[in-house]
Amino acid sequence: MKVTELETPALIIDLDILERNLARAAEYARANDLRLRPHTKTHKIPELARHQLLSGAAGLTVAKVGEAEVMIEAEPPELLVAYPVIGRRKLERLMAVGRRTRLMVALDHLLPARQLSDAARAARLTIGVLAEIDVGLGRVGVTPGPELAQLAEGIARLPHLTFEGLTFYPGHIRGVDEDAIRALDQAGERVREALAVLRRAGFESRVVSGGSTPTLFHSHRVRDLTEVRPGTYIFNDRNTLATGACTLADCAASVLVTVVSTARPGQIIIDGGSKTFSSDRHLASPEASFGYVVEAPDAVFTKMNEEHGYVDVRRAGREFSIGDPLRVIPNHICTAMNLHETVYGIRGEQVAEIWRVEARGKLQ
Amino acid sequence: MKVTELETPALIIDLDILERNLARAAEYARANDLRLRPHTKTHKIPELARHQLLSGAAGLTVAKVGEAEVMIEAEPPELLVAYPVIGRRKLERLMAVGRRTRLMVALDHLLPARQLSDAARAARLTIGVLAEIDVGLGRVGVTPGPELAQLAEGIARLPHLTFEGLTFYPGHIRGVDEDAIRALDQAGERVREALAVLRRAGFESRVVSGGSTPTLFHSHRVRDLTEVRPGTYIFNDRNTLATGACTLADCAASVLVTVVSTARPGQIIIDGGSKTFSSDRHLASPEASFGYVVEAPDAVFTKMNEEHGYVDVRRAGREFSIGDPLRVIPNHICTAMNLHETVYGIRGEQVAEIWRVEARGKLQ
Repeated sequence: MKVTELETPALIIDLDILERNLARAAEYARANDLRLRPHTKTHKIPELARHQLLSGAAGLTVAKVGEAEVMIEAEPPELLVAYPVIGRRKLERLMAVGRRTRLMVALDHLLPARQLSDAARAARLTIGVLAEIDVGLGRVGVTPGPELAQLAEGIARLPHLTFEGLTFYPGHIRGVDEDAIRALDQAGERVREALAVLRRAGFESRVVSGGSTPTLFHSHRVRDLTEVRPGTYIFNDRNTLATGACTLADCAASVLVTVVSTARPGQIIIDGGSKTFSSDRHLASPEASFGYVVEAPDAVFTKMNEEHGYVDVRRAGREFSIGDPLRVIPNHICTAMNLHETVYGIRGEQVAEIWRVEARGKLQ
Repeated sequence: MKVTELETPALIIDLDILERNLARAAEYARANDLRLRPHTKTHKIPELARHQLLSGAAGLTVAKVGEAEVMIEAEPPELLVAYPVIGRRKLERLMAVGRRTRLMVALDHLLPARQLSDAARAARLTIGVLAEIDVGLGRVGVTPGPELAQLAEGIARLPHLTFEGLTFYPGHIRGVDEDAIRALDQAGERVREALAVLRRAGFESRVVSGGSTPTLFHSHRVRDLTEVRPGTYIFNDRNTLATGACTLADCAASVLVTVVSTARPGQIIIDGGSKTFSSDRHLASPEASFGYVVEAPDAVFTKMNEEHGYVDVRRAGREFSIGDPLRVIPNHICTAMNLHETVYGIRGEQVAEIWRVEARGKLQ
């Protein structure tokens, strides 16, 4: 099937670009002696997780238990749940996954550690635990200090858990400019403090897990790091582009849309809105548009309703007719993917792969 | 099952409130001699569409062909596709729906009318057409004037189509204050002009279809209206609340979440973010928070990542612990519903219904 035969809106993935993105990350990780443990929340497709494992990833990352249940199909040698798992029923489900691979769980409090220990004991499993520290995002994670030592001690005392080390997410760093590099160095400093705190309390950290797509190729600056967990890097998106961490030629995913109305002069309506792209703003400038129109870079995707995209074409330098196909690179590919049942891998103008987004909506 | 036993995040619907919302709209429509044709994009669940039909709706509305394919299961006596359908394959699929109910399609250009006529001829069906006019939103729809007369004439000349009348969407009106009422009266004026244009060109309009949730209970002001198409009214949400078109007691849907981290003083992290609530902003004040926390109205849901909600609890007037359940009313329930595989109908503290969101992600 040709790409032009797809019914729109359709999320399409350029496989040549995707493969280049995977190879580049794997090569960087190898060259810097880092394990690559991609976060699969970006694509939510087991086949793509397998692709990552075959092209250099040492394991996988998920946020939710429901994602773990899907991603186990990719047969990862190790799976990190980078999210506190709370509640008996969820932990039982997680233990079923833990029977099929080596599990690690990130947490920042002894309460989930105790629940995890109870579940692991009932399932007769041993689960690795990473203590999460905050390096500046201000989301989850303890401060490197006495609190961290207490957390590690608590984890180590709980049966059926092993303390494996540290994890952090530098989600506050969204660039590769001087400020961003400085923030990354500060994050590295926090990691060093955390490791010192742990060492003083008698703990060695086998794993120091961090990283994000914007910081990916600067991860070597965090000297103690043992592994990186980028997600978006597989596709990149308009926000990654804005950070300077990729070029337009590295953006593998776009949404094929159709012009459905030209009723208002200077404006076209495309058949994708917030239920196709998500309403995620452009991080660098929230007032910027909702996507990059490949065929008309000067068109401005100004507004969305659920199924309508409003594109200002006054400066687009071309005419548009109802039925015209356009490709739009979303601001945030992770939330866009999650809205699609099916996505299409393309080679040139041919549809080469059709994938169900198996883990979309796996919120629990 | 008790509500408290649900794994979170879980979208829950208070059935008593939902039924009250449906009854109130049906009663208003009856009292004002309006047909009620709810837009099902809000809930995307055939059982709820059936509920609407049983409680006074005369037909249903959908945006996409994929939604029509799902909603036909509710056996609507009439189905309006309030969206221009472009492309042969989609129109073939739509004709399959047209074999099972009386179809109407809204459009604003002769190109989709011609494609629809061709598809209807091939399927040996006759499809009703509504000409869409713009009454102020500036999205789709022609201006009441010569363009409208030409559109109606073109439709009337095309075989297998019947010109049925007008449709409009007053999506620019988001309140019930004086300004909003004035805007609604202006919209009514546009409708009157459009009907006059059509009458002069020799067309009677059997159908004049309009309305939205914020304007629902003021629809009688648009004197020529024959039917209303509210969507959100079945649940209401925080944005409806902000318009003044409902009270907090009319909000039927909320998301049950769990506190998963309290690492940062004055802040809690809940297990729902942009993949649970959508990133849709509060329309009345875009800087307002992402949802209303029922158990702590003074808590401020300031920020989201995909699976993390950041709630500022400094003024919440209570303490929070990991594992605490909270209910959050989303800003925009339509985009939130679309993110959930399954939602739960509750009576008091009991789960009474479990529904799959069948039409979620039906983008094509």
